[in-house]
Amino acid sequence: MTSLLLRNVRPYGGANSDLLIRDGRIAGIGRFEADPGMPVEDGKGAIAIPGLIDAHTHLDKTTWGMPWHENNRRAVLRERIDFERDNRIAIGIDPHRQSMRHTIGLAAHGATHIRSHVDIDPVHKLALVDGIMETREKLKGIIDIEIVAFPQSGLMVMPGTLELLDEALSQGCEVLGGIDPCGIDRDPKGQLDALFALALKHQKPIDIHLHEAGDLGAFTMELMFERIRANGMQGKVAISHAFALGMNDYLRVGQLIEQIAELDVAILTTGAPSATVPSIMRLKQAGVRVGAGCDGIRDTWGPWGQPDMLDRARVVGMKNGLRSDIELAHVLHVVSQGGADVMRIEGYGLAEGCNADLTLLTGETLAHAVVDVAPRPLVIKGGRVTARDGQATVEMP
Amino acid sequence: MTSLLLRNVRPYGGANSDLLIRDGRIAGIGRFEADPGMPVEDGKGAIAIPGLIDAHTHLDKTTWGMPWHENNRRAVLRERIDFERDNRIAIGIDPHRQSMRHTIGLAAHGATHIRSHVDIDPVHKLALVDGIMETREKLKGIIDIEIVAFPQSGLMVMPGTLELLDEALSQGCEVLGGIDPCGIDRDPKGQLDALFALALKHQKPIDIHLHEAGDLGAFTMELMFERIRANGMQGKVAISHAFALGMNDYLRVGQLIEQIAELDVAILTTGAPSATVPSIMRLKQAGVRVGAGCDGIRDTWGPWGQPDMLDRARVVGMKNGLRSDIELAHVLHVVSQGGADVMRIEGYGLAEGCNADLTLLTGETLAHAVVDVAPRPLVIKGGRVTARDGQATVEMP
Repeated sequence: MTSLLLRNVRPYGGANSDLLIRDGRIAGIGRFEADPGMPVEDGKGAIAIPGLIDAHTHLDKTTWGMPWHENNRRAVLRERIDFERDNRIAIGIDPHRQSMRHTIGLAAHGATHIRSHVDIDPVHKLALVDGIMETREKLKGIIDIEIVAFPQSGLMVMPGTLELLDEALSQGCEVLGGIDPCGIDRDPKGQLDALFALALKHQKPIDIHLHEAGDLGAFTMELMFERIRANGMQGKVAISHAFALGMNDYLRVGQLIEQIAELDVAILTTGAPSATVPSIMRLKQAGVRVGAGCDGIRDTWGPWGQPDMLDRARVVGMKNGLRSDIELAHVLHVVSQGGADVMRIEGYGLAEGCNADLTLLTGETLAHAVVDVAPRPLVIKGGRVTARDGQATVEMP
Repeated sequence: MTSLLLRNVRPYGGANSDLLIRDGRIAGIGRFEADPGMPVEDGKGAIAIPGLIDAHTHLDKTTWGMPWHENNRRAVLRERIDFERDNRIAIGIDPHRQSMRHTIGLAAHGATHIRSHVDIDPVHKLALVDGIMETREKLKGIIDIEIVAFPQSGLMVMPGTLELLDEALSQGCEVLGGIDPCGIDRDPKGQLDALFALALKHQKPIDIHLHEAGDLGAFTMELMFERIRANGMQGKVAISHAFALGMNDYLRVGQLIEQIAELDVAILTTGAPSATVPSIMRLKQAGVRVGAGCDGIRDTWGPWGQPDMLDRARVVGMKNGLRSDIELAHVLHVVSQGGADVMRIEGYGLAEGCNADLTLLTGETLAHAVVDVAPRPLVIKGGRVTARDGQATVEMP
């Protein structure tokens, strides 16, 4: 059991304190002397926040650490999906090695929890999930990984996928994924009925990628709301991206958010700069659980992204047009506590009794740390130091 | 006169070459031996591009290097303008010291040219311009600064400002600025007639801030087009921000761009993530001169921005939804050659005979360098090394 005295930090940018960590948990916040033999770290006055959470990413896709992947292919969604599925292994995107790189990158930058979608299709079956599970096992104690069984190539248009999802949930995937029931699957009723039935069978939550924008995405959301009500899945469903909530129709968006709040649907945003994205301030006002994620990082889809949730906080903040210190502090909330709310992480936080999962930020205030994509001198998971100055203690393969 | 042999670089990411620099100019690209006594630098295979250009910034406004400026004031444009004008000196935003910090930051990250708007109003008169001119003088040989005489507080609503602009142009400001003739000045005919007359009197170009979006901004643009035609100012006018070109009306935007191209109006973008911005790819197709800028950096208006034009390239690229290598190379073009096209910088480029103003980028390809906000191992201005590894050779005050 890991114990540690972390001196001289400012929890949430507040008063300077020590954090006493015993058996992997925060035993006290105040002024303490180390127990005999207890290791001591000096936080040097840095801000302390609970560990950052990447609540929407794709650990199986990245080319991070590989040579630059040149991409001048057509920007057509279906073609990108098919290209990736058919070429990922030839390109060298080994799911275990690449997810190690991606995960260690996130940990080095202060993340302590990840929710990753992992592709499942008839070509790769559960091989990609296996690779991520191997990574999860190897990085136990450094970062927690939750796996979403994700039918990236579609469900209705890709026979055999439903059975594979069923198997994946039996084998330890915690969440059932879905994707654009209209846009990709061309059969929203078919996909959603199948997904909700499977989720009920396994008693697992759902997290659906919904890139569908405007009225199309709003329609799909309504189909989801109907099934949440019919199946008593309140509090068990998340919508990733939810670009429809960024459409320029205040009242229509308001109606959707009202139902999202009522059915306790969670929203996961990446702050996609070129898309219409949900307003995190409006969702906050409505009391909706909101997390954020880096999404894909340098994959065959596109080049953007860093394995760094503070860089993502900046992207989300800029895209949302946030400027005030109060708003910027909320962005930091979304990439930490917000993710924990979505993933329902027990013992998350920076209070006595919480898991000692935290990161230090070199900055004057929470807002300053977001704007600065602040250096992270120390990351701690379960009371153990897992990264220093942007370098994880575990080596990247 | 400065000479240098820069070995082992890849101009625009192409074949590995040496750059022979004599008397501040590129004398040859190929393989060379150093003249006797000529300094030699090893580029270590980095990409070489001409110096980055921040073609739209505000050197007189930043709090860079000062304590974090907390800001929970209301997000009302007029209030922000008045707050800044009335509090900037009390806050400690000394125009010379702060413009030194801002400029040296840009130079450290590879910039060799800046176009800066500098506030002129009846409270500060030309004091802010004086501060920036002092900086320009001190940093001669490190970076070139072009000054836009900028009526930030408005022209028609702020009597005395027109006379101050007149004086500023006489004293060496190279460009005449303007701002939201409708939104800020409430009198578009009044502001534009005054500005065009003053520009004609001094034979100087115009660069107008146009945040006005949608139909309002389109209307103001049309008023500008009329005055460009009437006064023969083709090729002499730039529109900064031009948010109206980001409106969701393909045909209307097309009509505006057609006139912009015909009248050789330049566009300056900051890729503002929460606004409607011009599509740099559409402007490229129309043959319009397009540059980019960091805009304000951590000022009393808002917290965002870095003094780094490659960071800005990433912001512009993500906002424009660019993904392919070809598109990403174009973003790099916008933050370098594009700015030179707008500012009509003589001798700019990476060819024999051009000024030896360049930056090295550590990356595999141009696209990779943009996505990575690549390290800049060496920056050269007029053949002289001005920065290494993100540190300028001149010290920041």
